Amino acid sequence: MPITNSTRTLISDCPDKIGKEVVLKGFVRVIRSHGKLVFLDLRDRSGAVQVVVNQQISEKAYKESLGLRPEFAIELIGLVKERPKTAAAKESSTGAVEIEAKDIKILSKAEVLPFDMGGPNLNLELPTLLDYRALTLRHPKIAAIFKIQETIASSFRSALKEEGFTEIFVPSIVPTATEGGAEVFSVNYYSRNAYLAQSPQLYKQIMVGVFEKVFTVAHAYRAEPSITTRHLSEYVSLDVEFGFINSWEDLMNAAEKLITSILKNVREENKNEISTLGINEIPQIKKAIPRVKLVDAQELIFKRTGMDNRNAPDLNPSDEKELCVWAKEETGAPFVFVTHFPTKKRPFYTMPDPSDQESTLSFDLLGISEEWVTGGQRINNYEQLLTHIKKWGNKKENFEIYLQAFRYGMPPEGGFALGLERVTKDILGLANVREASLFPRDMERIDERLSVINKKDKKTS
Amino acid sequence: MPITNSTRTLISDCPDKIGKEVVLKGFVRVIRSHGKLVFLDLRDRSGAVQVVVNQQISEKAYKESLGLRPEFAIELIGLVKERPKTAAAKESSTGAVEIEAKDIKILSKAEVLPFDMGGPNLNLELPTLLDYRALTLRHPKIAAIFKIQETIASSFRSALKEEGFTEIFVPSIVPTATEGGAEVFSVNYYSRNAYLAQSPQLYKQIMVGVFEKVFTVAHAYRAEPSITTRHLSEYVSLDVEFGFINSWEDLMNAAEKLITSILKNVREENKNEISTLGINEIPQIKKAIPRVKLVDAQELIFKRTGMDNRNAPDLNPSDEKELCVWAKEETGAPFVFVTHFPTKKRPFYTMPDPSDQESTLSFDLLGISEEWVTGGQRINNYEQLLTHIKKWGNKKENFEIYLQAFRYGMPPEGGFALGLERVTKDILGLANVREASLFPRDMERIDERLSVINKKDKKTS
Repeated sequence: MPITNSTRTLISDCPDKIGKEVVLKGFVRVIRSHGKLVFLDLRDRSGAVQVVVNQQISEKAYKESLGLRPEFAIELIGLVKERPKTAAAKESSTGAVEIEAKDIKILSKAEVLPFDMGGPNLNLELPTLLDYRALTLRHPKIAAIFKIQETIASSFRSALKEEGFTEIFVPSIVPTATEGGAEVFSVNYYSRNAYLAQSPQLYKQIMVGVFEKVFTVAHAYRAEPSITTRHLSEYVSLDVEFGFINSWEDLMNAAEKLITSILKNVREENKNEISTLGINEIPQIKKAIPRVKLVDAQELIFKRTGMDNRNAPDLNPSDEKELCVWAKEETGAPFVFVTHFPTKKRPFYTMPDPSDQESTLSFDLLGISEEWVTGGQRINNYEQLLTHIKKWGNKKENFEIYLQAFRYGMPPEGGFALGLERVTKDILGLANVREASLFPRDMERIDERLSVINKKDKKTS
Repeated sequence: MPITNSTRTLISDCPDKIGKEVVLKGFVRVIRSHGKLVFLDLRDRSGAVQVVVNQQISEKAYKESLGLRPEFAIELIGLVKERPKTAAAKESSTGAVEIEAKDIKILSKAEVLPFDMGGPNLNLELPTLLDYRALTLRHPKIAAIFKIQETIASSFRSALKEEGFTEIFVPSIVPTATEGGAEVFSVNYYSRNAYLAQSPQLYKQIMVGVFEKVFTVAHAYRAEPSITTRHLSEYVSLDVEFGFINSWEDLMNAAEKLITSILKNVREENKNEISTLGINEIPQIKKAIPRVKLVDAQELIFKRTGMDNRNAPDLNPSDEKELCVWAKEETGAPFVFVTHFPTKKRPFYTMPDPSDQESTLSFDLLGISEEWVTGGQRINNYEQLLTHIKKWGNKKENFEIYLQAFRYGMPPEGGFALGLERVTKDILGLANVREASLFPRDMERIDERLSVINKKDKKTS
């Protein structure tokens, strides 16, 4: 039973309750004992506040506080008091008050932590950060990442809903490798072979025939055979597709508007988290994002750096970084569209440029330092699509339901996709995309390191 | 190139544009030729309208119209005209107007349809409905289902955000079968064995330690070894979890509030779709939903029907139907909470009733005719959880990251989950849950029937 029936107060509301008794619930962040005084930092979902436990005020609260350790979940009754101006902690939004404890109840105990969680930073190497994920996520600097990630996803949805898009839910177990290549996970599906979708691409295209403008928040799976700082084996793909376009430039216009809106929302809705993370600025798009053909981008890189990648079919990571630097110089924001990738480097459904069949009406939007968005116009003519499927070494029999959508009328259409974790990583300047995934999957880890899991298997067999 | 640079008008806006020239884009639903007059029903994402192509008004439009067939995607310029009162189609929101075609451009051709898509109903058996999914989804009565599904999902999110919940994104590739049992799909994960999550349960519980109140829209996978009208092999699970509860009744209160809000939003936001589907009423929850212990519910069923399932550990489908009938008689709405399911029938993480260890602080919310929501309080004490994991035949080594969350302090907590497709099915009175999934997965089908896919495999091998 709770120690009181009064309503719980959130920590962030305490500065408005000076002189009042409140019930707080939360986790102990830090505990410091000074004889008959015990100081706690208490955290709840709204923030953190200092609690003073004074034996002379409450013997009961004092006794209970002696058993506390970091991460204990507690409930407490206390008086909200203004702190002397000289003692006020200015860096905290609740720094002007402290709570004088009247009663404390332990809701759940915690073992001794494997490392200090009470400091402003969590100075851990990535493997440790992930080995103790259930714990490290509780640190305010880690939790803030995922509050911002929530804003990115919800801004994505709301911006598109405002434009008349419909949200759809599409499956992730699929009969064929959508995007081709070997990087696909297979599933034992009732003793048959199925796959995990590399993207929701084919389904969102089908749905253009139904709702014209659609989006989906889908999981995408790539059996990446290597460890990089920017790839995950499972990630959240924010996918957009729409029909009746007048020109493929409509697609870039939509992507530009969407990214601008996402950045604006993060800036406005996550002020606290941005401050917690110590981030100076969230980039702001004020001028039109430049649109540069791949060949021209390569020329630009050659001129700026002397690196000659002018015959490469794609950009490499250092090219992408350099182009973002260039874009920032030009427009004040590190964003640039690179367009017209070679036909042979894009998936079968990509629309070739009518004026040059070796090139496509495709684009990547580079953001901050790497690819954020990839998209383009799709082939909407059934016969042309059949030809491409064959040319790309696929069988039309494997795309039966997909092909139906084009056999029965599909207007000019296209779309694009953003990786949620990658965008989160870049906006926040994180070093590794794994830091932007609650529970990242890669070839070495599913929660625990796979080497550890394997050892266990051996033990039990 | 488009036939005009004027802005496109949506069909639903036509009644406001009488006497004006508009550009419409959409799909031909129906085409009827009467000598020099051709009538089209044109559909776009906003609705449908009648187009009159009169050779005497536009020879060009008339010529183009002669080549049209259903599902052609077209662009047209036309004059919005008021229809004579006697000819107005009252059942349609655009029935008071028609469009006099000035110019027509074909954007995409369609093959002859395998069945009529132009009628108010699509009278097809389920297998055909699914064999031609990319086409049948375009029928207004099918598309309406998924507009309502969108409302259910977005109401779920917005209702919870208002209550201070955080949306989280958790992985679907997992190291262990979460909910136990054999109904799990295995994934070849870099030559090791992994699984598709049966639910996001363990991750949402972990996240209570971070954000206290969380929700997620996740895919859940069940290798159901049979074909029923209410199970899918992949479905969308709307999952909720929160901590610092005062009592496990808080969980039912939250579920009740959420369902009430979802039903209200569907009623208010989907008036057009409800009318398209010919649905009389969306159930409305006006009185508190009854809460009945399983044993009392079984007694009730025995008294009402004479069927004696009083010793059964769970409800069967006909019990669930009967309880919904009873609830409707009692409260006017077919919703009832059944509580205190036996400990041995619930997953390892379920909190036993402190006053009866054989029973649990768990509930199902039955809606309309079957289980909509399942939930309960969870064990938040680390030692108790360890004991249960062992007792349920699991190894603690398989739950390392999950157990961390409890080892380092977890307040009293619980949650629940709804299946998006099942709720959609029941609200709309659909016969089969497959009708409420865009691309349903079951043991016989991944888009195409698996028997067909298998034959193809043989051909190519």
